[in-house]
Amino acid sequence: MRNIKMTIEYDGSRYLGWQKLGDSDKTIQGKIENILSEMTKTTSDIIGSGRTDAGTHARGQIANFKTTSNMELIAMRDHLNTYLPRDIVVKKLEEVPERFHARYNATGKQYSYYVWNTPVPSAFERTYSYHHPEQLDVTKMNEACKILTGTHDFIGFSSLKKTKKSTVRTIKEITIHKEGDLLHFTFIGDGFLYKMIRIIMGTLLEIGIGKMSPEHIDTLFESGIRSDAGMTVPAQGLFLDEVFY
Amino acid sequence: MRNIKMTIEYDGSRYLGWQKLGDSDKTIQGKIENILSEMTKTTSDIIGSGRTDAGTHARGQIANFKTTSNMELIAMRDHLNTYLPRDIVVKKLEEVPERFHARYNATGKQYSYYVWNTPVPSAFERTYSYHHPEQLDVTKMNEACKILTGTHDFIGFSSLKKTKKSTVRTIKEITIHKEGDLLHFTFIGDGFLYKMIRIIMGTLLEIGIGKMSPEHIDTLFESGIRSDAGMTVPAQGLFLDEVFY
Repeated sequence: MRNIKMTIEYDGSRYLGWQKLGDSDKTIQGKIENILSEMTKTTSDIIGSGRTDAGTHARGQIANFKTTSNMELIAMRDHLNTYLPRDIVVKKLEEVPERFHARYNATGKQYSYYVWNTPVPSAFERTYSYHHPEQLDVTKMNEACKILTGTHDFIGFSSLKKTKKSTVRTIKEITIHKEGDLLHFTFIGDGFLYKMIRIIMGTLLEIGIGKMSPEHIDTLFESGIRSDAGMTVPAQGLFLDEVFY
Repeated sequence: MRNIKMTIEYDGSRYLGWQKLGDSDKTIQGKIENILSEMTKTTSDIIGSGRTDAGTHARGQIANFKTTSNMELIAMRDHLNTYLPRDIVVKKLEEVPERFHARYNATGKQYSYYVWNTPVPSAFERTYSYHHPEQLDVTKMNEACKILTGTHDFIGFSSLKKTKKSTVRTIKEITIHKEGDLLHFTFIGDGFLYKMIRIIMGTLLEIGIGKMSPEHIDTLFESGIRSDAGMTVPAQGLFLDEVFY
């Protein structure tokens, strides 16, 4: 059996997220599997590196699937892109060893979050960023990012109920770049809990407007109480940039 | 009467263009006039710097309107942005002398056209560029741009039927920048005929793939025959960047 690794880009605006939900036609995984199945004339289950929420975008989602098809990779890629909706694009297909598993072998991920930070909205960034009109103190937010970096129990930054699974994660780096009126946050870590980045972002915004102090992050690590953190910012500003193996 | 100059940004994807068409709700001018009329409780006709075609975008369309309203400019801007669809944004409102006319006083315009120039499409640039998979010879296209620059009769690069109005225009500058897989063309001129930039772009692409030579531009200036030029490329790659006064 061939094992094929896919790099996928999508504009998540119209979808319920990556993960297939029953017969729903509104997931990215579902859309790709439908076309793969028709193309290879067999049922094709694809394994994603992980879920992305409804409305979240991806520049480099990774998935793999096994197939007996002899079709060449470029012909396969072009066939997929011809039949996929235009907001889902297969950027690259690669032959990988049979043991490669897009989820189990992932060692880390990079996400971006964009904040449109000026009173007047943007017609072009409206579905790719979160509009936050009030001015943000980037120095204070950077201080908070330093405290967030490292290995911590992030249960307070998650929508998870009490769970037996570990909620300890390692954030390697958070950076903030100003690109005109857009603030670009990047997060690199070994993995992120459900809604973790969106809740961290909501907390960073509270710190940016002075409603919380950077040191509040320490309190949150100690309490682990979700309601001590900021709001969950909208998914439309979130991009899965890259999966590391 | 106050005379107010507006700077408007729009994603043209969902619209029939700038110019109001009867009762249609599908034009940018129509959308803005409806909200202005309700806000000022009088009929508000707005004068645009010129039309943009169905599907064309704008970063800096200029318009003006007269009003007896005493509302402050920032309150007016925020009111408009609250009620406008999110793909139309009023970036700026300025008080101008009563004689200012957005169309008659315009001395020039800058447009951009984007070509996504690689075999694999883009999920994010799909509605903001034209996907042209074949490789393009930028040197040859730049030679053609030099010939296009200056004062010429552009009738051959227009969808206009024979007309008594002058079809002579001056192009001050055309530049081509490579930004990753995106080719960014900018056009600065005193004015552009109906569909002129899209037909010039179609001709530049023919030159870029070697089907026409840069010198073919001279032949086109001599013949003035539309069918000697390239195709009209789609409006979705076109942006009105700026209007000069």
